[in-house]
Amino acid sequence: MTRSTADLMADRARLLGPNVATFYDDPLHIVRGEGVWLWDAEGRKYLDCYNNVPHVGHCNPRVVEAICRQASTLNTHTRYVHEGILAYVERLTATMADALESAVLTCTGSEANDIALRMAEAVTGHRGIIATDATYHGNTSLVSQLGQSNVPTVGFGLDQYFRFVAAPDSYRNPDPDGALFAQSVAARIDALKADGTGFAALVVCPYFLNEGFPRHADGWLKAAAEVVRKAGGLLICDEVQSGFGRIGTHMWAHEKMGVVPDIVVLGKPMGNGHPIGGVVTSSDILGAFRSGYRYFNTFGGNPVSCAAAMAVLEEIEAEDLMANARKVGAYAQERLTILAGKYDVIGDVRGSGLVFGAEMVLDPADKTPASGYADRVINQMRQRGVILSKLGRHKNTLKIRPPMPFSTANADLLFDTLDAVLAQTPVAP
Amino acid sequence: MTRSTADLMADRARLLGPNVATFYDDPLHIVRGEGVWLWDAEGRKYLDCYNNVPHVGHCNPRVVEAICRQASTLNTHTRYVHEGILAYVERLTATMADALESAVLTCTGSEANDIALRMAEAVTGHRGIIATDATYHGNTSLVSQLGQSNVPTVGFGLDQYFRFVAAPDSYRNPDPDGALFAQSVAARIDALKADGTGFAALVVCPYFLNEGFPRHADGWLKAAAEVVRKAGGLLICDEVQSGFGRIGTHMWAHEKMGVVPDIVVLGKPMGNGHPIGGVVTSSDILGAFRSGYRYFNTFGGNPVSCAAAMAVLEEIEAEDLMANARKVGAYAQERLTILAGKYDVIGDVRGSGLVFGAEMVLDPADKTPASGYADRVINQMRQRGVILSKLGRHKNTLKIRPPMPFSTANADLLFDTLDAVLAQTPVAP
Repeated sequence: MTRSTADLMADRARLLGPNVATFYDDPLHIVRGEGVWLWDAEGRKYLDCYNNVPHVGHCNPRVVEAICRQASTLNTHTRYVHEGILAYVERLTATMADALESAVLTCTGSEANDIALRMAEAVTGHRGIIATDATYHGNTSLVSQLGQSNVPTVGFGLDQYFRFVAAPDSYRNPDPDGALFAQSVAARIDALKADGTGFAALVVCPYFLNEGFPRHADGWLKAAAEVVRKAGGLLICDEVQSGFGRIGTHMWAHEKMGVVPDIVVLGKPMGNGHPIGGVVTSSDILGAFRSGYRYFNTFGGNPVSCAAAMAVLEEIEAEDLMANARKVGAYAQERLTILAGKYDVIGDVRGSGLVFGAEMVLDPADKTPASGYADRVINQMRQRGVILSKLGRHKNTLKIRPPMPFSTANADLLFDTLDAVLAQTPVAP
Repeated sequence: MTRSTADLMADRARLLGPNVATFYDDPLHIVRGEGVWLWDAEGRKYLDCYNNVPHVGHCNPRVVEAICRQASTLNTHTRYVHEGILAYVERLTATMADALESAVLTCTGSEANDIALRMAEAVTGHRGIIATDATYHGNTSLVSQLGQSNVPTVGFGLDQYFRFVAAPDSYRNPDPDGALFAQSVAARIDALKADGTGFAALVVCPYFLNEGFPRHADGWLKAAAEVVRKAGGLLICDEVQSGFGRIGTHMWAHEKMGVVPDIVVLGKPMGNGHPIGGVVTSSDILGAFRSGYRYFNTFGGNPVSCAAAMAVLEEIEAEDLMANARKVGAYAQERLTILAGKYDVIGDVRGSGLVFGAEMVLDPADKTPASGYADRVINQMRQRGVILSKLGRHKNTLKIRPPMPFSTANADLLFDTLDAVLAQTPVAP
């Protein structure tokens, strides 16, 4: 006996409180998932073009089996020695540059960013953090204050240490080699030093996902990294969204951007939905943190989490999902570009691998964001069984970021549906 | 082919960094768990008298089955409607007073405490937090600064908002009705108001687990709660260790202490090791938090976490584990009391349900803490196949906090072994 969505929404308000947002005007009541597909309570099937957390596919058999096997064998904590965490960190760090050799495992990307900022404080002795003005790095008291799009009015005043640079925007404010971005960072560093706060770190998603994944040439972050290092600060790359092969060309977006970060932050897709996050860094930085701070995380790095995360790495390799992301992503951008030729509302097509999208504008010349229109498109797509979302500073960029086994046939269904929705949705409401 | 523990310890230092503590001088390499038992890599069996996270027993079949079933069906997030989280919060809040009617689910107790402090800030408009000077409430930048026993030297200076009262100590400084404790809290509140910080909340474990679980009469926290409310602050009870029936007499230790907290914080045992935590509070407080803060936790309250947590509640009820805790706990204290008559080093026997222990002292008159001796006892017990630990301000109190299916036969093995160890371990080294 299935309860109505309206009933469940009333229960949500009562049990989970106000302002617990759902996606879509007509919320989805999802009950089952498999690969790139989701089913609602009425048996309706949806193509998932949005969820990056089930990185290797909803209910991936390899991951499910790893979780079941380990959960029925042992699940404790890192106060005992266990091979699972060691084998996982060994394999994970092997995918990164030599200097990125050790890790702290957590349960969430938020916990990982919260550690990364403290590492920067421990190493530099300062607390000044620089981020972009259209980002999000998590939900703890400390890191939530980096999320300008989320403007918390509570949080113990931690924003006192944070400074923001304009998010890169390749469509409106081209910055081909990242020199302008580096200059903005340099200006904030100078200001932090001048006002006595001091500079600890620049924290960015190296593919600037929340900012709308601007089109950047390879090596684009080099100039900013140089400025950061010269000022004695650390470069923190939050790869929660951009990592694990999603961009198709590289396992980690920081590689594409031409930098080796001091700290890499991991989260969402790491355990395919099982709660695991982490920080990868050098022995020196980890040592500095651990000498100032006896960090322990009860669930972090437990045998089940590590088994899930290991299965994700194995699946990426076994199914060559990075190559799939590259191939399907290229195909998707071709199809999006064709649609852009047909519909003026598509102002810009961007992406790499299995993160791509289109910026919607009211007028191609003025580039006025069509935020409301993007919203209507997304809701229409949901009604037609295709799940996606939007992001960027103006919330007008389609956010398409499906599970990694997404195929060209899936892309065809996505774009055939998008074509139909755009044809039937007038830009002027 | 099993690798040596020494080999694995070298890998830990290399991959996980320095200062990642293990328990015992001779670290345990645990590979399997079932009920109250753990096995090491050499097949040796240990009686687990320490781990509270596997609340309903290591690899509890009901929990494992719930995790496997849900992980192979669907694992998404709360942006979609799902019955699992609603059914769980309904059942969880039904175990508490009416005012504790809604919840935010997280992945860890640390995340939950981090939210609880922000709730207090949102409701009161102030940031002054009071805790005891021998406690621990988690590992985020904010809440880690409450942990005096962990003295972090980094953490963005958040301790500026925190004030500490002496941890209660029924053995050395009796305070039968909690009036002295309430006076200390009142003095800190006055100081917070006088220095302009303002008062937001008192946060305590209602059974004062980390402080050494002092012997307190029922209703002991009433006086402090009254002081807190009169000053316009919130009472936060961190039930991460004391909740879910562990103390045997009540599902929640705050009931024994005679108070209804404004906020209850949950963690460790909630999902039997699966990463889930949460905050339970009133609709008004949750509303105040959510209006100042659009909190979202990607993994928090996901269908698998809720299935695991629901199975824990079901198992507690089906196996009447609270009654078992009461019965076995009473028996354990009898046996401990007999040992106290035999060995002068046992200065005090305390506990309730399946959290109990003995304070070790060099001299019953002076009550000088026998911290080093307690350490030797714990290591001897480990060598004899019984796992326990120590805690309290002086780290001289045996910490016995086994999985809830712990039986009187298990207690017999524990105390027979302890008797043998105490007989063979001279107090003067």
